[in-house]
Amino acid sequence: MNNILIIGAGRSSTALINYVLEKARDRNWTVTVADADPELAKQKVNDHPNGRAAWLDVLKVNDRRDLISRHDIVVSLMPAHLHIEVALDCIKLKKHLITASYVSQEMHKLSDAARSHDLIFMGEMGLDPGIDHMSAMQKIHQIKQHGGQLTAFRSYTGGLIAPESDDNPWHYKFTWNPRNVILAGQGTAQFLEGGKFRYIPYNRLFTKYWVVDIPGMGDYEVYANRDSLLYRDVYGLSGIPNILRGTIRHLGYCDAWNALRKIGLTDNSFPIVDSGDLTYHELMEAYAGGGPGSVKDRIARLLDQDVDSPVMEKLEWLGLFRKTKIHVANATPAQILEDLLLKKWALKPSDKDMIIMHHEFEYILENQTRLLKSTLVMKGANEHDTAMARLVGLPIGIFVRLVMEGKIKATGVNIPVMQEVYDPVLEELATYGVVFREEEVIL
Amino acid sequence: MNNILIIGAGRSSTALINYVLEKARDRNWTVTVADADPELAKQKVNDHPNGRAAWLDVLKVNDRRDLISRHDIVVSLMPAHLHIEVALDCIKLKKHLITASYVSQEMHKLSDAARSHDLIFMGEMGLDPGIDHMSAMQKIHQIKQHGGQLTAFRSYTGGLIAPESDDNPWHYKFTWNPRNVILAGQGTAQFLEGGKFRYIPYNRLFTKYWVVDIPGMGDYEVYANRDSLLYRDVYGLSGIPNILRGTIRHLGYCDAWNALRKIGLTDNSFPIVDSGDLTYHELMEAYAGGGPGSVKDRIARLLDQDVDSPVMEKLEWLGLFRKTKIHVANATPAQILEDLLLKKWALKPSDKDMIIMHHEFEYILENQTRLLKSTLVMKGANEHDTAMARLVGLPIGIFVRLVMEGKIKATGVNIPVMQEVYDPVLEELATYGVVFREEEVIL
Repeated sequence: MNNILIIGAGRSSTALINYVLEKARDRNWTVTVADADPELAKQKVNDHPNGRAAWLDVLKVNDRRDLISRHDIVVSLMPAHLHIEVALDCIKLKKHLITASYVSQEMHKLSDAARSHDLIFMGEMGLDPGIDHMSAMQKIHQIKQHGGQLTAFRSYTGGLIAPESDDNPWHYKFTWNPRNVILAGQGTAQFLEGGKFRYIPYNRLFTKYWVVDIPGMGDYEVYANRDSLLYRDVYGLSGIPNILRGTIRHLGYCDAWNALRKIGLTDNSFPIVDSGDLTYHELMEAYAGGGPGSVKDRIARLLDQDVDSPVMEKLEWLGLFRKTKIHVANATPAQILEDLLLKKWALKPSDKDMIIMHHEFEYILENQTRLLKSTLVMKGANEHDTAMARLVGLPIGIFVRLVMEGKIKATGVNIPVMQEVYDPVLEELATYGVVFREEEVIL
Repeated sequence: MNNILIIGAGRSSTALINYVLEKARDRNWTVTVADADPELAKQKVNDHPNGRAAWLDVLKVNDRRDLISRHDIVVSLMPAHLHIEVALDCIKLKKHLITASYVSQEMHKLSDAARSHDLIFMGEMGLDPGIDHMSAMQKIHQIKQHGGQLTAFRSYTGGLIAPESDDNPWHYKFTWNPRNVILAGQGTAQFLEGGKFRYIPYNRLFTKYWVVDIPGMGDYEVYANRDSLLYRDVYGLSGIPNILRGTIRHLGYCDAWNALRKIGLTDNSFPIVDSGDLTYHELMEAYAGGGPGSVKDRIARLLDQDVDSPVMEKLEWLGLFRKTKIHVANATPAQILEDLLLKKWALKPSDKDMIIMHHEFEYILENQTRLLKSTLVMKGANEHDTAMARLVGLPIGIFVRLVMEGKIKATGVNIPVMQEVYDPVLEELATYGVVFREEEVIL
């Protein structure tokens, strides 16, 4: 095994490509970076002697198969819905496959086929999902091995802006896929509390947040993710009475985001008629309805807010009451909001992003209830070298190395919850500063 | 032209098939009713000498084309997303096409091709959309021809239960596609009021209803449809300051439906984990969250309702607080709700449904502002012979006759907004008791 293929040279690929190229030199690997934009691929390879750039339109079946056939392991960084075609090729051509995306039902169905060819198809190998699985499973297994009985598992992650680069009233900037931020939470969050199921629908999600003290960082808000229960069995937590996964935001974010939701700006189902000709002020007027007072007064009334409240301050800062044109034709409210936030929440060149991942494990050991907190805080260097890109790319890169060196025994479709994966990956991540700080108290 | 093909022999087809077969006898038409269930088709044809039943899996391209090729005009009553394949066949084989469904963008694009072959592709030819277009356009054109200047157009339709069959606290039963009732309003309702755009997102839709006096029937609630502005230009109303399309419900419905929405039961995006093992009581418990009091007390608190309010009475009547099993595995909240309502809101064999369609036209004529109300109320005979099925099927049947008799000059993709269609269709509908009562006042 000498040939690695990385499909996709976009924003999230840099740390991965650099890691793999660095390891390639004294291992005699060849690393091909393929993208629909060959210049971008070339730029990422940066004339490395072990690297080469390739042009690939992933929808061109023959080109794709031809390229895959000449490699031993494939990393797919494409949009999630494109993975399945690559996966089918990998079954046919007997190649390993690694992605950072959620493993779909379709992908799960390939597990027997992959296993029968001794292939590993590893999904959810990035940050969240990825490092969250590995860091949680390492602790869960350790607690169980010591005879502890888990009574609660809570796990929160946030892609945030570092305090030193935080210069807007939302205390937020885009450091990852903006669309996912706009549409976050649409659905029903499901988790377990005191042995009982709890459901929070979208219409209450941003009002039912928790304030959580992140060691060394202070208080943050957490709202519930949709998928807390999905990992219950995979994590070996089937009897546990408390399980919650959540998203971390700065204090004040949830109330303000709830205001955008309540106004109607997160709806992505149908376009606003004539959206390209409207101003933000007219848009708000249309939501506010008639009545006395300015549009801002009426929006404040609609939201049960004082006109100078922190929430209204955040809406005002976005420019929602200004008479400037929206300039996005045939757009849904969510698309109008995304276009606006892309301008307002853009990273400046020197801005540092910040990832916080925080786990809480409650368990009973020797008749004592203990609370173990495990917290990762990592900051990026600038607009391009983000903590997000590193924390998505490095675990994939490390796992590629492990597979290339024959150190992985698992086969079939997997996510990284097994010791043979999380131990070496977390150990090497620590050398890149990815370190979870722990503190434990007896309750 | 002698051969008519009707694809789909489901619930909405009976009135149409009976009409066309009745007209076929002395016109020497042959009417083929095709369905994936040949017994159903046979039953609907009922040994009529001019009818024959055919088995058709509409996804089998060659069978479908072969059948279409042997007819002159095709009526498609299949689910909307299947129309486009039939439409492409009709272009290729040079056949006319009629549906009761909304005309999609894809369908619109076939207009030039249809026109170049002198074909009419008529969509939205049922009740709503259908009779609403025709009855509104006839009045709008008449008002304009008399020199009136329209200042407001409001149009409301409801598929309801007749008062004599109304025996539940919701005053509602399913007389049409249940899924559409469950998911109604998800999106953003857009309309015009006083010359200004107004938007109501789903989260406020069922709180922002109007109470409308339906002549001869009393007060009903109306909530805004998503599509009021879509027909502004097609109806020739581009400068009008007020336009609103809405859905009619019995008094008290909107508040209670809003409670189901707020609880979270109309979300259709992701399944509830273990839904098949839960009881309704456990489901409500999971939404209610912890706290003092019974689940019903806590749900009432969540909804800002007294525990014995009319809204809570409606929820109780649905059985939402009972410890009976849901028995629907892997179901979204909306699917759980649909399954429950299918039992609670089922028509009894002798139940009569009722359609109300109500238009309001405000216009200025000779310096006077006038309000013209035009109202259709029609009841069905029983569970099978519903007003809904008649009002969807008869306009299609009449239009088939008009095309077969060469009385339609229009070609291309259309909806029934032209006089050569609405005049003869409405005139013949009147002989079936489909009569709009009018009253006009000077404001």
